[in-house]
Parts: sequence; structure tokens; C-alpha cells
Amino acid sequence: MGVKKSDHSGEERIIDLFRPFVRHPGALGLLDDCAVLPSLPGTDLVLKADAIIGGIHFLHDDPPALVARKALRVNLSDLAAKGAKPLGFLLSLAVPEEIGESWLERFARGLGEDSEQYKCPLLGGDTDRTTGPLVVSIAALGSLPSGTMVKRSTAKIGDYVVVTGTIGDAALGLRVAQDAIIAGQWGLTASQAQHLFERYRLPQPRNVVAEAVRRYASAAIDISDGLAGDLAKLCAASGVSADIEAGRVPLSEAAHAALFKEPALLESILTGGDDYEILATVEPAKLDPFCAAAAAAGVPLTPMGHMVKGNEAPRFATSDGTPLAFSRASFSHF
Amino acid sequence: MGVKKSDHSGEERIIDLFRPFVRHPGALGLLDDCAVLPSLPGTDLVLKADAIIGGIHFLHDDPPALVARKALRVNLSDLAAKGAKPLGFLLSLAVPEEIGESWLERFARGLGEDSEQYKCPLLGGDTDRTTGPLVVSIAALGSLPSGTMVKRSTAKIGDYVVVTGTIGDAALGLRVAQDAIIAGQWGLTASQAQHLFERYRLPQPRNVVAEAVRRYASAAIDISDGLAGDLAKLCAASGVSADIEAGRVPLSEAAHAALFKEPALLESILTGGDDYEILATVEPAKLDPFCAAAAAAGVPLTPMGHMVKGNEAPRFATSDGTPLAFSRASFSHF
Repeated sequence: MGVKKSDHSGEERIIDLFRPFVRHPGALGLLDDCAVLPSLPGTDLVLKADAIIGGIHFLHDDPPALVARKALRVNLSDLAAKGAKPLGFLLSLAVPEEIGESWLERFARGLGEDSEQYKCPLLGGDTDRTTGPLVVSIAALGSLPSGTMVKRSTAKIGDYVVVTGTIGDAALGLRVAQDAIIAGQWGLTASQAQHLFERYRLPQPRNVVAEAVRRYASAAIDISDGLAGDLAKLCAASGVSADIEAGRVPLSEAAHAALFKEPALLESILTGGDDYEILATVEPAKLDPFCAAAAAAGVPLTPMGHMVKGNEAPRFATSDGTPLAFSRASFSHF
Repeated sequence: MGVKKSDHSGEERIIDLFRPFVRHPGALGLLDDCAVLPSLPGTDLVLKADAIIGGIHFLHDDPPALVARKALRVNLSDLAAKGAKPLGFLLSLAVPEEIGESWLERFARGLGEDSEQYKCPLLGGDTDRTTGPLVVSIAALGSLPSGTMVKRSTAKIGDYVVVTGTIGDAALGLRVAQDAIIAGQWGLTASQAQHLFERYRLPQPRNVVAEAVRRYASAAIDISDGLAGDLAKLCAASGVSADIEAGRVPLSEAAHAALFKEPALLESILTGGDDYEILATVEPAKLDPFCAAAAAAGVPLTPMGHMVKGNEAPRFATSDGTPLAFSRASFSHF
């Protein structure tokens, strides 16, 4: 008689749920201690780790596939803003007792679908029990030609400030999710309310424009903590300031409708979190090709203002030049 | 008037605590969305993510520097077992309200010291509040010459089974930590009890022998879930079995003393977790150079048996051939 085969423990059963979605050879079928990736000559590796936590970044009754997708997408959005192409990711799960295999199976399937959609394979990870809420930690890897990562710190005076997609939908969508009557007060149609809610529930990272960002942007940042706050970070890192015309900030039809009814929402729109759009700066000669490349990828890119001299925070003004002031610049969970 | 500068929020204050220990240029001073690493031609990237959780992998009153070191070292141990040299790591923290800046400052300093000692720089990360226990998720990156990662699945019949250091100290150390009188019952001196306790509290990953593992081992695995269980995983991955002579499993003087007094501890020693030694297989012709290279690095390497044909779990036997049976092969938190 010898040692019994290692029990097919809880951890191994959880890993089994992810195995059907593992296709990259470097993941070694999740059967080894580590994953392995060949290095790509002439490239740089771009690295990001971000976690989402139950009750803070998502609700306990959110669909598991949605939680999985959000966890991956917040990381993919950072890779996109830096101009990087996804290479793969590692997943670390802290799982409370009340989350069972059926929940995790749906979580794994959602992750597998996004991993396919964004060509960002699961390479490895670990899973443990916790007495607290679910914590989904992802470390994402991307690549780009050597020396071409688009930083926050390289914006120049005179550059245009541009942004992908629309701003403020997620902040308004959170209000809609929390308050059953607010969409009515804002005069929104059901489909407008739904649009805002969906934009809050599931980020749509702009990885399809990563290559255009890399080619044309002088600096960029992913907008996760609000346009005003993230622009302030880019300005601080670059040692310059910015003048933004608030009326040129691109809004969805739903956000326009809500803002028309309640002008005070402008602050939520410009400072709310969870946009997951890309804020970039671009030198004037490259604005047109940048917009054309983004449009070809199906993503609108909108100029909103310019980088200017100074080390003060960016200024937002109405079209007649009246400056706007906000009570807070940026969203923080702290 | 414009937007106020982004508040120096809680998250940013926490990042500030880590900044003094950030020296790698690719971390961009923790001031950008992502870190960047040049790819090394002719190498493979080796990737591992592992988290430790308060109340499960460490105690709430453990010194913060120790918690930080343990979190990094469990990952470093995996890199070592694969033959990889550390490149750097990403850190993702979920921080409960009751952990304040002074705790985190000591945590950051411990992490900084280990990062220096193991030449494994902090490259980036994120931090969030949680309503649950502290979760420290680390994703570690290593490198090695292309195609040379030492897998679990490549052991061959006839290979020696060897192990670094000593086995079972951490499992006995946990008992010592939990039971104030047990060290006395085992007849241990104070320094022997202390030795076991320290081996439990802080892993000593064998990164100094990573290069020797890469050159000489046919397969390897990091022992974190107990010698018997991790050997069973290596056997299963390689499609072979193993015969181990229990009396040749290397023990510390303290473990020897305890085992002499209480022979039933053999099961805890062979199946307990947290050894963080490297279990490797090696073809006979390479045994001597492997042992010599490990000795030159200051790490004892001990042959304990052989890989044999079969798909059953590894067999442990006494020197007269009597087989041993264990009630469980491997430690699991589930």
C-alpha cells in the first residue's frame, strides 16, 4: 500500500471549471506550477494588475459571467490605453463559502468568452477560500513594439485632447441602478435608461483602437476614475495643463437627454467613474489620421480641447468661456 | 476657477508607501496605468500568480513585514522550481478598514527588503478597500533561456527523486505555534522549537538553486502542499510512479528529535504543507553535478528514491521495505 492519490480537492475542482477555456499552450493545461510564454523579439511587455471586489466593484447578485467579464475588461482597458495588444492573463480568486460550483462554472464560462473575444488567453492562476467577499485579481500582459508604450507623461503643449466613445454613461447608469424612479425624472425612454445601465454594468474597453493609439497618441490614460480626475493625472504626469470645452465632451443620446432635463448632472458626467474610454493627447498634424483610424475600427474619437502651459489642474469651461467648478475631481473607493 | 487637483486619495497614499522601494525603470515610479519590461531575446517568460489571505495563510497579528515576505516568497518558490530567474512582480491588495497606514508602511518595507534580496522588483499593482480579510495577490514573472522551463510532466523511469533542504519543519512548526506545550512533549530544546516555528512562519524559497534545477533536473515541482501530495502531482503529470525510502527523506535536527519521541509524526512530516523546498527528478548521470551545484549554492540536495513504472501514487516505505500508508496525501485549504 502506498500514499493515496492526492484528493481531487476543492481547489482542483475549481481549476477543472476553467480548463475547458484554456487553449494557450503556455498555460500547460493549468497542470504545472507556472505558465510559460516565449518572448517576442523587438517587443516590450506591458503589465497591469487590477482586482475587483464583491460589494465594492460589483453587486453580490450580479450575474457571474458579468463579474468575470468586468474583472478582465478593466485590465484590458489599461492595455488598450497604452497601445498594447493583449497576450494573456493570470487569475487569482479568493472565494467565499457561499459561492458554489454552479456560480463559478458560469463565471468561468463568461471569462472564457471574453478571453476569446479579446484574444487574451487565461495562462494560469490560483484559487483560495476566504471568509470575506469574492476578490477577483487579474494580472494582464500585453505587448507592443519596443519603446512604443504610450505613457501618461508625454503630452505636449498644443496637443489636442481627444476621447473615445462617450463620457458619463456609467456614472448615470449607476444612479439608474440605485434609484428606480430617477430615469423617469430625467425623462428617459426605457431604452435610454437601459443604455446607461448597461454601460455601468459592463465596461466596453477600446482594444480595437489600441494600435491607433500607439501610432498617433502623444500620451494616453484609461478613464476609470472620471474624465476630470484622469485628465488631471495625465496633466500632472506631463507637467502641463489642459483647457477643455465642456460642450464638446461627447455624450450618448441618453446622457444628453438626462442633462437637458437636469443640467446639474454635468458634474457627475465629467467626474463620475467607470467610463473605460481612452483619453489621449495628439499633436495637431496627427489628429486627422488618428480620428480616421479610430473610425475605421468603429470607435468615434472626439477632440474636446488642448493641452496648455501651466501646472494647475485642467480647466473645463462652457462654450462662452464660463469656467466650471466641481466639488470633487475624481472617484475613489477610499 | 477649474477642477480641483485630484484629491490625494487613500489609494494614492497607499501607493506612496511603496514608492520608496520601487527602483525598476519599467515601474515608471508607479505613476502610469501599466508597467513596461523589454523582452529578452532568446528567453521565455515564466508566470505565476498566488495570493495569501488573512486568517487562512497568515494570522491577523503576524508582523506586517512577514506577511509581505510570505506573499512574495510563495511565488518566488514556484519560479525557483521551474528553473527561472525572477524578473519582477505585480501586487494587488484588498485592504480591510482596520488596517491602517502604519501597518501598510511596515508591509511595504518588508516587501521592499525581499524584493531587493531576491532581485525581484515591484513593477506595479493596485489597491482597494474590502469588507473582508486582507488579500495579498502577487503575480510574479521570471525568465530563462527559451525552451528550458522545468516542467512537472517530464520525469522519466529510473530518474532519482531528490529534494532540497529539509521536509516537515513547517508542519511541525504550525503545531508548535498552535500548542504551547507540544514542543516540551516532543522533548525539543527552545532553539529546536524556534527553528520549526520560523520554518513555518517564513518560507525560504530556494531561488539560489534555480539555475542548477534548470541545468540538471528532468522535472520539478515546488513543495507547498506536502511532499507526498506534490510528488503525487509530479508522478501523475509525468505518467509514472515513484518509490521513496522514508528514512532518506531529509529532516532537520529538530524534526528528527520530535520524530524520535513521537514516531506517528512521520505522517505530518511527509504530508504537511508549507515546506517550500524543491522536489526534482534527475537522470542518474546528472545526480552528482546537480548535488555539487546545489552544495556550491549552499543548499543540501538529498536523493530519496527513484521514479518507477506505473500510474499508481508514489510509494513510501521504511528501510526494511515496509510500506507506509497515510490518511491524506496532501494539504488543502478547501
